[in-house]
Amino acid sequence: MDTSVVKAEYKVFKELGLKLDMSRGKPSSEQLELSNAIHNQLSTFKSKEGIDIRNYGGAHGLLEARLLFESLLDIPYSQIIVDNNSSLALMHDAIVFALIYGFPDGAPWIRKPISILCPVPGYDRHFAICEALGINMININMHEDGPDIEEIKNIVKDNPDIKGIWCVPKYSNPTGAVYSDEVVHSLATMDTAASDFKIFWDDAYRFHHLTDEKISTANILEQCTKAGYPNRPIIFSSTSKITLAGAGISALAASSSNIAWWEKCTAVRSIGPDKVNQFRHVQFLKDRVNVEHLMGQHSRILKPKFDAVIQQFEYYLKDNPNISWTNPKGGYFIDLKVPQGFAKRTIELAKDLGITLTPAGAAFPYKIDPMDSHIRIAPSYPSLSEITQAAKGVALSLLLALNE
Amino acid sequence: MDTSVVKAEYKVFKELGLKLDMSRGKPSSEQLELSNAIHNQLSTFKSKEGIDIRNYGGAHGLLEARLLFESLLDIPYSQIIVDNNSSLALMHDAIVFALIYGFPDGAPWIRKPISILCPVPGYDRHFAICEALGINMININMHEDGPDIEEIKNIVKDNPDIKGIWCVPKYSNPTGAVYSDEVVHSLATMDTAASDFKIFWDDAYRFHHLTDEKISTANILEQCTKAGYPNRPIIFSSTSKITLAGAGISALAASSSNIAWWEKCTAVRSIGPDKVNQFRHVQFLKDRVNVEHLMGQHSRILKPKFDAVIQQFEYYLKDNPNISWTNPKGGYFIDLKVPQGFAKRTIELAKDLGITLTPAGAAFPYKIDPMDSHIRIAPSYPSLSEITQAAKGVALSLLLALNE
Repeated sequence: MDTSVVKAEYKVFKELGLKLDMSRGKPSSEQLELSNAIHNQLSTFKSKEGIDIRNYGGAHGLLEARLLFESLLDIPYSQIIVDNNSSLALMHDAIVFALIYGFPDGAPWIRKPISILCPVPGYDRHFAICEALGINMININMHEDGPDIEEIKNIVKDNPDIKGIWCVPKYSNPTGAVYSDEVVHSLATMDTAASDFKIFWDDAYRFHHLTDEKISTANILEQCTKAGYPNRPIIFSSTSKITLAGAGISALAASSSNIAWWEKCTAVRSIGPDKVNQFRHVQFLKDRVNVEHLMGQHSRILKPKFDAVIQQFEYYLKDNPNISWTNPKGGYFIDLKVPQGFAKRTIELAKDLGITLTPAGAAFPYKIDPMDSHIRIAPSYPSLSEITQAAKGVALSLLLALNE
Repeated sequence: MDTSVVKAEYKVFKELGLKLDMSRGKPSSEQLELSNAIHNQLSTFKSKEGIDIRNYGGAHGLLEARLLFESLLDIPYSQIIVDNNSSLALMHDAIVFALIYGFPDGAPWIRKPISILCPVPGYDRHFAICEALGINMININMHEDGPDIEEIKNIVKDNPDIKGIWCVPKYSNPTGAVYSDEVVHSLATMDTAASDFKIFWDDAYRFHHLTDEKISTANILEQCTKAGYPNRPIIFSSTSKITLAGAGISALAASSSNIAWWEKCTAVRSIGPDKVNQFRHVQFLKDRVNVEHLMGQHSRILKPKFDAVIQQFEYYLKDNPNISWTNPKGGYFIDLKVPQGFAKRTIELAKDLGITLTPAGAAFPYKIDPMDSHIRIAPSYPSLSEITQAAKGVALSLLLALNE
């Protein structure tokens, strides 16, 4: 596109004075309304086990809720804890407990400097936990089939201070990458110098397909157990993007030994999770088939928004061989890859158009994108017409940045 | 009572084969039903500030919920965080954050051995947090007007490693003690060698009166602020024994500086609390007057149970000058004080009658009651007839123990 045309279009856009937010992977109200029936009055407060769900107790979560997650995660319910509304809180606490108490197979992490591997670009909130807690982060390159496994194998086999890796195995935030069976197998079987090496497996988008392909990933707990490392993975899941973003339920799954450790660590923290909300979820979600049906409804709202972004990118950006974007088969994000050194400037120019994007570098440890070339696009929250506008604005901002 | 009569009555009781649980301060189902309307369908999901309560966000809690706690705690809402169902979790996390990050006025507590003062008998779960986290506990004697303030003043003024004190200021667990204005004033004004000395103020029974007296205690935050120590107290509250024991909402109140610190520590942990449950609570509880009305209904269920216990104790135990019990004006417990060395044995004998009591020593750090003389009675959960039986059984067990 001609520079003068870009400038003119950018100017016209700016004069519209829009206010568009594509910064976070928030579901839209339309999506939240798919779960309206979750607020229906409960007909009983007695659980399957005869517990009054309103009272104290049940640290590992309601049996019904654990059975629901058993069917969703393909892991026995006895190895699943169901908790309150935030799986991020479970990840945070797992690392805090590792720092203070240590995992059953190692010493407290706080005793000496440790590192965690961070496939990049990745989820900013994973990296924020590490940064706050003073845990060193090491970048690992992401490919379409997961993180660079040779890089990982090389670094973990000799270094006992590398204690873990963050993984979003399916429709990864933000690239949409899906871990191949080979990658999962390698993570499960590789030699690690640290006896207490942990895979923090954030299965955030397990049912969040955007196509009919409904991709599945290998069962990390099964793979690790088969390889003789049952205590390696800690799996996190939630209904935040299935039912209600801020009022869902969360789950942690792991080996029996890790579950016993978790129960011991958390026993002094609380007398149990909110079982009423767990019960509501069980009554509403019922079973895996029903969850998959619900996710189909989400998909029908989300897919046109992703398509609209990609259509705008194709229209404005397809002529530039140094610009690319992901076309994910699920999840909540598109990763726009721009020429080195242009992400920050593009985001600034978009801001002048009234478009809020995730800050440049957010998808990297310490908020530093070494190439300044990734822009995370979150199409879920705005309306379809807003998202179309916003994508056009981002494209124009990028073209203007390149022409400056 | 004659030994042979005691033995005979004990034997008859045992043959009844009862199963009674007086171990925990759990509300009865009858109490939980007082809040049935909290489960009613919500008519809107938009908050006062225009937020969709179902979505992510709002780390400090819904404005409406903070305003409700403002009216309940007499602390400005801007200094209140409202969170999920467990105030114990807030206490636990405050201490974990102090260990790892340190309070704004001190270094991370984990750097060297520290101690916390524990008025005894006290709340077992406070002590369990300290024990798990390796924090040394120092017993402080409880009186009817609060902990022994001279003991406290003496020990904190020269010892910078004493970092805090646990307090249940009103209807204290388990003695029912109410902190006098003098005690609160002394705690607020006393010199402490530690600049980051903290009062963990667990205001668990603020509205939980058993008489019409409706005792109030001095505002610790106001007192500390006036004394020039605004950052000394961290106040905890919840609706667990107002609405639903396992599905209420909790609050943390403190100085603006401590609140900013808390928000920073928790920002990486979660994208916000369950605002739907907070909204339900606001709709149901409405305001302080309504909360007080609801607490009157709780009181009318609880009071006869306390009276029944005391009646049995009077009937069986009043002749023994070395036995005494509290007759609390609120809260959830009666403290039965038995001659030195007889608590454990009484609890064993009661167990043989099918009565589960809180384990001996539970109300003391490290579960050690140095005099083996306190038995915590929790009359709330069983029915009135069960509680009458159970109290009789405890009395008989004690008499038998003394006669062995």
